[in-house]
Amino acid sequence: FGLFLGLVLPNPNMLLAQEIGAEELTARFDRIEQSLAGLMQEQQQNQSATNNVAQIEEVVAKYLEEEKEQKAASRPTVTVFGRMHLEGLFFPEDSPGVDYFENPLTGDDVEDRIQFRRIRLGAQGKISPTGIYRVELDFGNPETPTFRDTYLGFEELPVLQTLLIGNQKRPLGLDAWNSNTNIIFMERPLPITAFNPNFRRIGIQSYGHTESENVNWQFGMFESSDVKSVGRYLGDDLQLCYVGRVASTPWYDQTSGGRGYFHVGVANMYSSADGDANSISAHQNQARFQTRPELRTSSQWLDTGTLSGATGYDTLGLETVLNIGTWQFTGEYLDTWVNRQADSNLFFDGGYVQAACFLTGEHEPWDRKTGRLSRVKPFEPFFLVNDWRGGVASGLGAWQIAARYSYLSLSDKDIHGGREQNVAVALNWYWTAHSKVLLDVVHGRISDHYPVGGYTGGHFTGLGVRFMMDF
Amino acid sequence: FGLFLGLVLPNPNMLLAQEIGAEELTARFDRIEQSLAGLMQEQQQNQSATNNVAQIEEVVAKYLEEEKEQKAASRPTVTVFGRMHLEGLFFPEDSPGVDYFENPLTGDDVEDRIQFRRIRLGAQGKISPTGIYRVELDFGNPETPTFRDTYLGFEELPVLQTLLIGNQKRPLGLDAWNSNTNIIFMERPLPITAFNPNFRRIGIQSYGHTESENVNWQFGMFESSDVKSVGRYLGDDLQLCYVGRVASTPWYDQTSGGRGYFHVGVANMYSSADGDANSISAHQNQARFQTRPELRTSSQWLDTGTLSGATGYDTLGLETVLNIGTWQFTGEYLDTWVNRQADSNLFFDGGYVQAACFLTGEHEPWDRKTGRLSRVKPFEPFFLVNDWRGGVASGLGAWQIAARYSYLSLSDKDIHGGREQNVAVALNWYWTAHSKVLLDVVHGRISDHYPVGGYTGGHFTGLGVRFMMDF
Amino acid sequence: FGLFLGLVLPNPNMLLAQEIGAEELTARFDRIEQSLAGLMQEQQQNQSATNNVAQIEEVVAKYLEEEKEQKAASRPTVTVFGRMHLEGLFFPEDSPGVDYFENPLTGDDVEDRIQFRRIRLGAQGKISPTGIYRVELDFGNPETPTFRDTYLGFEELPVLQTLLIGNQKRPLGLDAWNSNTNIIFMERPLPITAFNPNFRRIGIQSYGHTESENVNWQFGMFESSDVKSVGRYLGDDLQLCYVGRVASTPWYDQTSGGRGYFHVGVANMYSSADGDANSISAHQNQARFQTRPELRTSSQWLDTGTLSGATGYDTLGLETVLNIGTWQFTGEYLDTWVNRQADSNLFFDGGYVQAACFLTGEHEPWDRKTGRLSRVKPFEPFFLVNDWRGGVASGLGAWQIAARYSYLSLSDKDIHGGREQNVAVALNWYWTAHSKVLLDVVHGRISDHYPVGGYTGGHFTGLGVRFMMDF
Repeated sequence: FGLFLGLVLPNPNMLLAQEIGAEELTARFDRIEQSLAGLMQEQQQNQSATNNVAQIEEVVAKYLEEEKEQKAASRPTVTVFGRMHLEGLFFPEDSPGVDYFENPLTGDDVEDRIQFRRIRLGAQGKISPTGIYRVELDFGNPETPTFRDTYLGFEELPVLQTLLIGNQKRPLGLDAWNSNTNIIFMERPLPITAFNPNFRRIGIQSYGHTESENVNWQFGMFESSDVKSVGRYLGDDLQLCYVGRVASTPWYDQTSGGRGYFHVGVANMYSSADGDANSISAHQNQARFQTRPELRTSSQWLDTGTLSGATGYDTLGLETVLNIGTWQFTGEYLDTWVNRQADSNLFFDGGYVQAACFLTGEHEPWDRKTGRLSRVKPFEPFFLVNDWRGGVASGLGAWQIAARYSYLSLSDKDIHGGREQNVAVALNWYWTAHSKVLLDVVHGRISDHYPVGGYTGGHFTGLGVRFMMDF
Repeated sequence: FGLFLGLVLPNPNMLLAQEIGAEELTARFDRIEQSLAGLMQEQQQNQSATNNVAQIEEVVAKYLEEEKEQKAASRPTVTVFGRMHLEGLFFPEDSPGVDYFENPLTGDDVEDRIQFRRIRLGAQGKISPTGIYRVELDFGNPETPTFRDTYLGFEELPVLQTLLIGNQKRPLGLDAWNSNTNIIFMERPLPITAFNPNFRRIGIQSYGHTESENVNWQFGMFESSDVKSVGRYLGDDLQLCYVGRVASTPWYDQTSGGRGYFHVGVANMYSSADGDANSISAHQNQARFQTRPELRTSSQWLDTGTLSGATGYDTLGLETVLNIGTWQFTGEYLDTWVNRQADSNLFFDGGYVQAACFLTGEHEPWDRKTGRLSRVKPFEPFFLVNDWRGGVASGLGAWQIAARYSYLSLSDKDIHGGREQNVAVALNWYWTAHSKVLLDVVHGRISDHYPVGGYTGGHFTGLGVRFMMDF
Repeated sequence: FGLFLGLVLPNPNMLLAQEIGAEELTARFDRIEQSLAGLMQEQQQNQSATNNVAQIEEVVAKYLEEEKEQKAASRPTVTVFGRMHLEGLFFPEDSPGVDYFENPLTGDDVEDRIQFRRIRLGAQGKISPTGIYRVELDFGNPETPTFRDTYLGFEELPVLQTLLIGNQKRPLGLDAWNSNTNIIFMERPLPITAFNPNFRRIGIQSYGHTESENVNWQFGMFESSDVKSVGRYLGDDLQLCYVGRVASTPWYDQTSGGRGYFHVGVANMYSSADGDANSISAHQNQARFQTRPELRTSSQWLDTGTLSGATGYDTLGLETVLNIGTWQFTGEYLDTWVNRQADSNLFFDGGYVQAACFLTGEHEPWDRKTGRLSRVKPFEPFFLVNDWRGGVASGLGAWQIAARYSYLSLSDKDIHGGREQNVAVALNWYWTAHSKVLLDVVHGRISDHYPVGGYTGGHFTGLGVRFMMDF
């Protein structure tokens, strides 16, 4: 270009000026052409990306369309969930008295067993922004299915917060309130199963907590009869029970993500009973306390029988948990006063203390909204695979040890349901947050029992191993 | 630039010309530079958007990959569905005769009850573009599950349109044909439950409608025995029944979205019966008519017993519905002729009239493809939440009142199954399109019944409240 | 521009030079302007696409958020699956002996039946990258649900590969190992159902295959008792069985997609038995062999009864399959030695040969990882729809014919469980890969049976039609 200008403009003075102009002109042209070239190159690069946008738009439009259809149908959401617990139980040692408690007619020894303790399937979801439901069935004994949580209700209500109608847990006893997915031993301790048998009843209950989550409560009214296998209660007189529980975590270490906390709770249940000694009618007297021995047996080894004349009973529960990192210490106490009208009142009680420790550093997380154990998440899940170098790669899972002492007295005055003291130790291997293996050893001693086969007491040692998963 | 040209070209005439040229040149350069700057700025802005396209492409590619895999697997689609109906029933007034109809041995009064009327879980979907299936189980009495809709079939067939094989409803009686999710009272009226008991049978049925949807029909052939709890019918002689129904909405107000319509329908069922008086064999004589009293009781209060010698019966059903905005008027009539060969024929009949009205302005929508009630959608769902100002925000739901008069005669000649007249009123509160509360009061009078405990008639008043949800 | 330059520059020589320069200048300006115009146009076009990116980003961000939440929850995956088999069975010909085998007390003839052979619902998924589970329930007889596959376990383990704990199939007999979704006849042949009754037991099993998939194996240990309806085994003495199977496809035609292959397999099971003649105790002696006649009947027609004194038995199974395009030839042989201690040992055996051919050109695909039949995919699914021209469009589905000869001897020495020979033919119509119709005719002859109603043998002809679907 400079050359061309040189030819065009001969005057030297002009030439200088022109050359300056030419240089500027050249520079501007160069800049423009560079910019253009750059732009066109970018344009070309972007073109391939932008070309895909049309295709992407189709996909996204379809996705949005599906979402819109779902909303238009406004069907409730559905999440399918379930769990499976498979266990082996072995009784290497059982005294004759215990054999009669298990097999009252024959006195045969306590049989070992392999069983599905639970096979559950259910569905839950939201009906509306604040409406929820849950339906849950258990097929552990598949020929006799039973239901568990089966309710509908509302969340975010003023004052009542969450209000559920249907079959749901009575919040009496912390280890009853804990999910069986999260409990540390295979079975709940004696006083829990004796004073809040099978936990769930048909009723209505409010679930609340403060905004800071340091206090939570549950209040409910239920029909006392357990109808999980028949689905209906018949009777002109309801045997209503009223349950309330308040719990708090006065200490909760937010900074460590809840590795340290202190929980206290108190619960009370008043239940009316129809006073009938006869238990064959459709509306069976609910004043009866019984329990299995912290391992699943065929019979309830401790059993007061139906308490003739009992018109009501009141159960108090005290709970406390201290968690310090990998360690957890738990204690509960429950007692029950039974009003027998004509006869003198009865007093039954029980309690337990429990310590657990993670060997691999995890901790037992706490659900502050409902005041109970939450799900343990192993630092590293268990796995064992061939790695690419021909070796084996592995993950350890989480390992926990625990010990528990529990006692229960169902004997008072003329009633001899029995007294039992159990010591149990556990080794728990968490494969993942949703699968684990529990190993329990339970040794127990029973006394002050109505004579069965001539025996009023006995002792046993049982061993259990359980494979668990939930989804 | 103008300056530069001024230096270059001294001749004034030329200068003018050159300046014009220079101005034009300048203008062009300016325009080019502006355009470039604009373009580069836009380019830069778009760059950030375009940069994301690569990332978006990944997500979309993954989404498409998943979709492709699903298609490649060509698994049938699966939608999990279910429902839960929890109710309380109370009988504040029941005469001795009614007590004996409920408890023939003891004459105990009719018990109140709390029960899960239905707990259902199922799965449905498409096997192929025109192939469908549905499997549905009921766990309302969980220890004795039963199945409901359990079929497979094809849609879009020539002539037959939809053809289903398996357990499905017989289209006899509009309120039988209505889903229990959509019926206005808690239980169907007497003649429906008496002449089409439990609705579903194993069989094959065609479902069709005209393109304009103003006429629809169903034709099917079924085994008469209800096998919902055992899953099998044994017997060398099938007791087949043939059912056909044609329905039409001669008036349907499209412009208001179906707030006004007039429905008429006629259905007929001929069923063979094995004539055997003895009902203990595997193939039980199906000629027997019975019903509960429009609330769920333990016994069937009206009951012809097995009709010895009956070799067949024919049931006719007439249906009509008039819907005008919030108001709906319904009437049905059903009668049955029983052929007893040696003995003279029997004639039983029944019917009902019903009126319902939404207080909140909604209407009962109509499904014109199948000729039955569709799902009510409240204008505003029920909710109650704290609002951001510290007050309470609420939604009303939909409110409906209804009244029904029904009668049934199962007494003719030597047969005294009983006659019953019921009056029922209802108050329905729709929380959402998928959850609601029904409140029913039923008063009934029974006469001309075989003597039970010496009584041939009686009267009762029952009260029911039901919480319902489906997903 | 040329014109303008002409005015500005009068010198002819310069003019020429200038015009050349001007032309070049013009050309450059033109190019630049064209490029700019093009760029701006493209920019504008892209703008509309790019404008959507923001909107797309929102959707994608939401999608990613959902995915992230799912991962954070790290819930196990859940796939709901199931199947439904509905069948009619007819026995046009049955001799008096067979009638007594079916109805030992009355000798009534074999009843026809309509039944749901299977209604299954289940859930399966992954707990972790290598952890899996499956829960499956059968409601074919809905009042007595049973479980099928119900296990948890790990994949990709070193040596053991897949290891499952829970209720799962014992790999004894190819047609037992085949899914009932894929078997060619309605029911398995006599020796399969006699020597591996109901297939599944609670136990632990390893599933492996070579990387090339030409060899696969299964090894497991199980409790012998079938607890599918009660969910538990009680007994101090386990009756354990040990099963192993190795299978290979020495010939497998990869190039045709597996239309040609040759399979051989050998399996062995040793099972202990408690030797007790008495079968009423909780731990029933598992040494008993029985079977139905290749169609579902009420009774087991061949039956050794509980073999008193039997303390163990060993069953061997040999399998072979040759597939050449549409043709498949199958043969199996199984025998069992029973150790009776005091009494002499017993020997039972059986086998079958089977040929099947697709008339429509498909083939029976093979699963080389587990050594069994895979799912047939029709070339064209069955459908029948009105096309747009007013005619009917249709798809044929896949059609297959098959024949089978089987025999079984459960009679040896003092035991007369019976001998049976069956000939069966089948016509199978595959609607889709997930739905089909089976038509079977079975003719059988029984001899050497314990006398029942005075009969030691008999013959029968049965006809079955089954509608099947799975999802």
